[in-house]
Amino acid sequence: MLRADGRGPWELRPVNIQRHYLKYAEGSVLITLGDTKVICSASVEEKVPPFLKGTGKGWITAEYSLLPRSTKERTVREAAKGRLSGRTHEIQRLIGRSLRSVVDLEALGERTIWIDCDVVQADGGTRTAAITGGFVALADALASLVEAGTLSRLPIRDFLAATSVGKVNGHILLDLSFEEDSTAQVDMNIVMTGKGQLVEVQGTGEGGTFSRMEMEQMLDLAWEGIAKLIAIQRETLGPLAERVGKDSA
Amino acid sequence: MLRADGRGPWELRPVNIQRHYLKYAEGSVLITLGDTKVICSASVEEKVPPFLKGTGKGWITAEYSLLPRSTKERTVREAAKGRLSGRTHEIQRLIGRSLRSVVDLEALGERTIWIDCDVVQADGGTRTAAITGGFVALADALASLVEAGTLSRLPIRDFLAATSVGKVNGHILLDLSFEEDSTAQVDMNIVMTGKGQLVEVQGTGEGGTFSRMEMEQMLDLAWEGIAKLIAIQRETLGPLAERVGKDSA
Amino acid sequence: MLRADGRGPWELRPVNIQRHYLKYAEGSVLITLGDTKVICSASVEEKVPPFLKGTGKGWITAEYSLLPRSTKERTVREAAKGRLSGRTHEIQRLIGRSLRSVVDLEALGERTIWIDCDVVQADGGTRTAAITGGFVALADALASLVEAGTLSRLPIRDFLAATSVGKVNGHILLDLSFEEDSTAQVDMNIVMTGKGQLVEVQGTGEGGTFSRMEMEQMLDLAWEGIAKLIAIQRETLGPLAERVGKDSA
Amino acid sequence: MLRADGRGPWELRPVNIQRHYLKYAEGSVLITLGDTKVICSASVEEKVPPFLKGTGKGWITAEYSLLPRSTKERTVREAAKGRLSGRTHEIQRLIGRSLRSVVDLEALGERTIWIDCDVVQADGGTRTAAITGGFVALADALASLVEAGTLSRLPIRDFLAATSVGKVNGHILLDLSFEEDSTAQVDMNIVMTGKGQLVEVQGTGEGGTFSRMEMEQMLDLAWEGIAKLIAIQRETLGPLAERVGKDSA
Amino acid sequence: MLRADGRGPWELRPVNIQRHYLKYAEGSVLITLGDTKVICSASVEEKVPPFLKGTGKGWITAEYSLLPRSTKERTVREAAKGRLSGRTHEIQRLIGRSLRSVVDLEALGERTIWIDCDVVQADGGTRTAAITGGFVALADALASLVEAGTLSRLPIRDFLAATSVGKVNGHILLDLSFEEDSTAQVDMNIVMTGKGQLVEVQGTGEGGTFSRMEMEQMLDLAWEGIAKLIAIQRETLGPLAERVGKDSA
Amino acid sequence: MLRADGRGPWELRPVNIQRHYLKYAEGSVLITLGDTKVICSASVEEKVPPFLKGTGKGWITAEYSLLPRSTKERTVREAAKGRLSGRTHEIQRLIGRSLRSVVDLEALGERTIWIDCDVVQADGGTRTAAITGGFVALADALASLVEAGTLSRLPIRDFLAATSVGKVNGHILLDLSFEEDSTAQVDMNIVMTGKGQLVEVQGTGEGGTFSRMEMEQMLDLAWEGIAKLIAIQRETLGPLAERVGKDSA
Repeated sequence: MLRADGRGPWELRPVNIQRHYLKYAEGSVLITLGDTKVICSASVEEKVPPFLKGTGKGWITAEYSLLPRSTKERTVREAAKGRLSGRTHEIQRLIGRSLRSVVDLEALGERTIWIDCDVVQADGGTRTAAITGGFVALADALASLVEAGTLSRLPIRDFLAATSVGKVNGHILLDLSFEEDSTAQVDMNIVMTGKGQLVEVQGTGEGGTFSRMEMEQMLDLAWEGIAKLIAIQRETLGPLAERVGKDSA
Repeated sequence: MLRADGRGPWELRPVNIQRHYLKYAEGSVLITLGDTKVICSASVEEKVPPFLKGTGKGWITAEYSLLPRSTKERTVREAAKGRLSGRTHEIQRLIGRSLRSVVDLEALGERTIWIDCDVVQADGGTRTAAITGGFVALADALASLVEAGTLSRLPIRDFLAATSVGKVNGHILLDLSFEEDSTAQVDMNIVMTGKGQLVEVQGTGEGGTFSRMEMEQMLDLAWEGIAKLIAIQRETLGPLAERVGKDSA
Repeated sequence: MLRADGRGPWELRPVNIQRHYLKYAEGSVLITLGDTKVICSASVEEKVPPFLKGTGKGWITAEYSLLPRSTKERTVREAAKGRLSGRTHEIQRLIGRSLRSVVDLEALGERTIWIDCDVVQADGGTRTAAITGGFVALADALASLVEAGTLSRLPIRDFLAATSVGKVNGHILLDLSFEEDSTAQVDMNIVMTGKGQLVEVQGTGEGGTFSRMEMEQMLDLAWEGIAKLIAIQRETLGPLAERVGKDSA
Repeated sequence: MLRADGRGPWELRPVNIQRHYLKYAEGSVLITLGDTKVICSASVEEKVPPFLKGTGKGWITAEYSLLPRSTKERTVREAAKGRLSGRTHEIQRLIGRSLRSVVDLEALGERTIWIDCDVVQADGGTRTAAITGGFVALADALASLVEAGTLSRLPIRDFLAATSVGKVNGHILLDLSFEEDSTAQVDMNIVMTGKGQLVEVQGTGEGGTFSRMEMEQMLDLAWEGIAKLIAIQRETLGPLAERVGKDSA
Repeated sequence: MLRADGRGPWELRPVNIQRHYLKYAEGSVLITLGDTKVICSASVEEKVPPFLKGTGKGWITAEYSLLPRSTKERTVREAAKGRLSGRTHEIQRLIGRSLRSVVDLEALGERTIWIDCDVVQADGGTRTAAITGGFVALADALASLVEAGTLSRLPIRDFLAATSVGKVNGHILLDLSFEEDSTAQVDMNIVMTGKGQLVEVQGTGEGGTFSRMEMEQMLDLAWEGIAKLIAIQRETLGPLAERVGKDSA
Repeated sequence: MLRADGRGPWELRPVNIQRHYLKYAEGSVLITLGDTKVICSASVEEKVPPFLKGTGKGWITAEYSLLPRSTKERTVREAAKGRLSGRTHEIQRLIGRSLRSVVDLEALGERTIWIDCDVVQADGGTRTAAITGGFVALADALASLVEAGTLSRLPIRDFLAATSVGKVNGHILLDLSFEEDSTAQVDMNIVMTGKGQLVEVQGTGEGGTFSRMEMEQMLDLAWEGIAKLIAIQRETLGPLAERVGKDSA
């Protein structure tokens, strides 16, 4: 058997997105991707970072954290260490940048949406789960602004989801588990929109390199995986899904 | 109606403790107390802080954190600020001290149990929920050491739970919600064992003072509340409950 | 002999409060409690923390620090470590909260009184000495605002002092020295007003628990000790003592 | 004219790599890429990070910093702020990971090579210049270990260089200047070996997305640019170039 | 009158050095210099900084801190800010370096003496008072090591004291008060031994410069002042003074 | 031969100051002093620190940093450690204070000039080279404000340069190299103006003391060295040199 959990090489793990997970947040989900579980919340703040003041444009920013016992070995809290690791910085910037790419920041107006991604259980793919789940929380938060009459329309241009692909023992696999990721020669995270436009491609040869041919295979595989994730987002969002990318012109 | 959620003054909110909530931790629960939800995990580390090295004794320490959107207004992460607040320090020390009081640290041997309390939703009573839930996670973690043959018996002397009482608009109430806590003249957290021994009494006249008489009433009320919480712990732990305080002589 | 210094179980150590200890501070004392010596100063700042801006109310906040060689073994400076310990946070919050409870913050107006408590020598009871001495420094600082015509009356509702009680080798003792505190099974700090109202009760079973009965005994003992401390405050303050709680209606 | 400096869309800026730039470092260069200037040094340390102790394997790690006035507006020092930005973390990790991919870490043995990249002047492409220049400094440092008899052969498997490509005003351009980078819809950094294997592909749709077709065009363009950069590395290294990838079997 | 306190230009303020000020420290004094008051303690630690391990040599290091209300305006604690100011660093280094210059570090053996200088009241000259008082505390701490049989002789080569001189409104003055220091055109701190050898000369033209002639005058004046301070140290130390510089060959 | 590089005791190392070293800074130089190389830039910021707001006066402040491999052994970055060392603080304050002494801060108006001194290679004398080179960068930055019409005249009163002298193996030497500095008994840094006025004298007996006579010899030697450095500054600045101290009345 190729994969420890019996999946085929091009198969995603079971995905579930539970909306309205938290009582207070404007948008929130618990996304599960196999054994990976991430709480994503979207909070509205009525101000923007200094560099946007007076521009009329809004902002979307993300924070990411592992619960100490989301991991096999207990991870020391970054609050206790007093500083964020390089890995955390990288992931936070990736999530924020990705979600901004499908939002009409001018239509959002001078406000910030904070996307908090707290990993309850980590079995690989936490950053892509955070993007996929974060999109749904974001949609709910933005819809709440429309409901409240603050915005006149949903300022989302398109769906957005992410997945990982990689080369493990010479095989190209979709949606790597922690075990697979640890032994991968190549690890690639891809963020894509509902129309199939690429937003981020981050491929890394950890202890190895990869050819153009392998790169193409990985992009093909990611394409299919993300298409499935977006179908799940659509289903989860129900009627709200219809408004994504529609009234944004 | 006295209380917004229709409770009587001496009534606890609905309590639920879900064991084995996380895949990797030696012990873990999700405790819900009304709208308050806390993930408590207990992790075993095979070393002790410097001041215990060579003494043969173990240690129990706790960490506490609010998820940013556990609260009505988004709370800034302490990892982002780079330092823990005074409130967090106080709560962490309280949880650790309380749990240590019912554990036979010599029987535990030179190892540390980390109790991580991550508040998913905060509606008052997060620190007492953390103690009550943390006890169950701790029991499971210690039991796993017995199962593994590392310990010969469960080194827990007694049950332990905690609740809050307070004076709100002149009434003595049990188990304050966030709303009630915000307007309380007196706020008291009490930690008690299964045998009714006090472990911690922390009473504070926030914007007010209290008489000896009122103090007695609050202690009486807490006594009853904690007895109920310990009954729920017993039920949750099932057969493991029988071993608490039993084989520890 | 029960106690190393020959005291009876219900006896305070010799107390002295030297007013006007520092040249520049609006209020300042050196309080000695046996071998414990704390410099308490009260400084007036003409602004309040952000959460009080525009409310018309004032604030009282405290800071606490050990001189490195106040202790038997040299204590590393928190300034050198770059962060305050949990213990320091807890004590600072306790002192500030306690003193606020007897001050009419509205009559104080939008200004902050900083209470700095610097321990020159530490032999147990530093936090209760800081509260007892801090009250006198505070009274002087507030009186200086009346003298200057900034306030029309002394905004202090009542006297306030604190002491510790504990269970050591099975005996309930008043005003623990460092030696006694280190071996106590129960350690309780109590803050009380001149009228005998409780403000803070912080009882901790360090390496032990305590019964309701023992709790009552400790509260009784603290009552008597605090009454004596307040008598000393009265004497120290002289004519100013008469104005406490008087013109505050 | 398409580009402010008169270049064609597929043209690199003038590149120069000055070896032996610093007196003390085992390897060091000043690389200039148009107006971008980076000092890269490689320092040998005879120990490894904790996770490699006892494995017999070595490590390569990078640090990156902007001189305050390398930029148009003065950049505040990260040492003065007391923390590294997310951007710095990301770049440091990228440089280290890239260089590790072409080094035989087992042949290196338990030692660390520190690659310090200090940007003297920044006009776009500082991270790719750091990788391209860092490779030369690394080669010199490793050669010095061979000369000293510490290593028996040069543990470098292949050449390595990096460049940026992007979409600016709808055109796909090679080697973006700061001005171009600021207005790019897509920005991609590519790291490649002498044999044309990919090591890192980091494509980001900043304020835009990109199609698979555009991605292919960017990869093609980067391929040509990196081939030219490696030719320059070869020329700069002279006889040492012959030993790269040769005696490493 | 030239000086606000009626002193002549070449006059020191009244100096008093109270030995054995703290109960626990191996050496400690309260030095008062007019309204300036500094607690200096000397603590023995049985280890040395890493760079001295295995050399057989000891070390002397100093820490300096202002109590918040030692100053006219309350000074924010460096522990609260989380970092030491440049001024504090400079003073600490000066005190440590100065005291090391008269101690035979080899005879001290592999141990560190910590000199803690805590300014209770600051009216100019705190750093020179810290050196002058710190010397006496150091002598007592070293004598305690001789008494305990740890050292065979007092490893102090000579006396050491410090004073400030300056140019204020065109006049050369000795021992500047805070007021004078604030308006000085030149400010010079001088550290000298009992034999009249210079250890530190730190002259600064703050808002002005100074000629060689003025420099000579200031050195002459400091010479006389320091000679008087050393006479006071001798008197304070009593019989111990006889052993300074005597048995150290 | 007395000195490793063949110099006579009163000889400076070869000095070169290359103006306009950086593209973006208002003033910038690369100063080389033997093997010591420092990039000094001067940047104009149109605001002042809080304590100068509304006074109409400007400010000059300096920052200093060692590139990690400027030194024989790699120096850990202060940005990575998260705090500046005491040595860095001391040097930064010295550079800023020195340069302020020859600038008419009122004529400068409410703006700050940042002097960044980044040491590319360190072979002794980095702080004095930073002052000598920083003066030239400062002159260029101030001249650019005159050219831009922001200032009506060059607000520099006099030239300023610095050098080190010391006692090494009993000889008084000018301009110490790193090797000499490491073994010096006395180390003195002197800052002087074009008219021969002293600005800073910082003499330290590291592992030794010095007599008044030796102090005089060191001041004489520094005088000559600084005169030569100022001649080089004049030559480097060309016509701009004529305006220093001229139109400033």
